[in-house]
Amino acid sequence: MRKALRAVGAFPILNHMLQYSDRLDRTFAAVADPTRRGILERLGRSDASITDLASAFDMTLTGMKKHVKILEESGLVTTEKVGRVRTCRVGPLRLDEETKWIGMYQEMLESRLTALEEFLERTKGRTR
Amino acid sequence: MRKALRAVGAFPILNHMLQYSDRLDRTFAAVADPTRRGILERLGRSDASITDLASAFDMTLTGMKKHVKILEESGLVTTEKVGRVRTCRVGPLRLDEETKWIGMYQEMLESRLTALEEFLERTKGRTR
Repeated sequence: MRKALRAVGAFPILNHMLQYSDRLDRTFAAVADPTRRGILERLGRSDASITDLASAFDMTLTGMKKHVKILEESGLVTTEKVGRVRTCRVGPLRLDEETKWIGMYQEMLESRLTALEEFLERTKGRTR
Repeated sequence: MRKALRAVGAFPILNHMLQYSDRLDRTFAAVADPTRRGILERLGRSDASITDLASAFDMTLTGMKKHVKILEESGLVTTEKVGRVRTCRVGPLRLDEETKWIGMYQEMLESRLTALEEFLERTKGRTR
C-alpha cells in the first residue's frame, strides 16, 4: 500500500482521489447492484417498509434486509423501526464525492488523450 | 425482475436509470476497488505494462492481470500486446452514464427531501 501511494505521490490531485477510498469502496459497491439501484429509485418515490420492498422486488425478507443493510452502511438509506415495522428512506448521502472522483478521472483522461495526440502530431512531423 | 420494473413503471426517468444497468453493474463494481482506482490513476500519468503495474502496487502478475481484466471488460482500460509485453492504457470509457445516473439520483433525492419538508410544513400548520 505504501508503494501504491508513493507511485502517485507526485500528483496532489490523485492523492485526493485516493483519500476517500474507504467511502468510495462502499458507495460504488452499493450502487453496483441492480436491485440496490432499484431500491434507491423506489425509495425516491416514497418511504417504504422492508416488507414493501421485498414484495416489490419479489424477494425474501432476509434477502431484502441484506440489501438494505448495505445501503444503510454506505449512508444511502436510513431506516427507522417503529413497533414491528422498519421504514426505509433515501439519504442522507448525496454522492457528491463520487461525482467528484469521476469528474477528476474524466479530466485526467482528457489530458492523457491530449498528451497522446500531441505525441502523435510530433511523431508525424518528424517522419515527414 | 418484471415486478421490479413495474414498480418504477410510472417514472420514465427511473426507467432510464435502469436501462443501463448491465453497464452500471460492471463500471461501478470496477471502480469500487481501491487497487483498480489506483491503476486508473497510475495509467493517467502514462501507459504501463502489466509488469510495471504489478511492481507499482506490490502485487503478483496474476493478481494484477485479474484487476486489469476487470477494468478492460468494463471499458475503462485497453491493452495491447506487442511481443511479450502487454501495455495498458486508460480509456475509452468516460463514465458519462455513471455521472448521469448519480445526477438523476441526486435530483430525485432533492425532490424527495422537498416533498418531506412540505409535508412537515403542512403538518405543522395543522397542529397550530
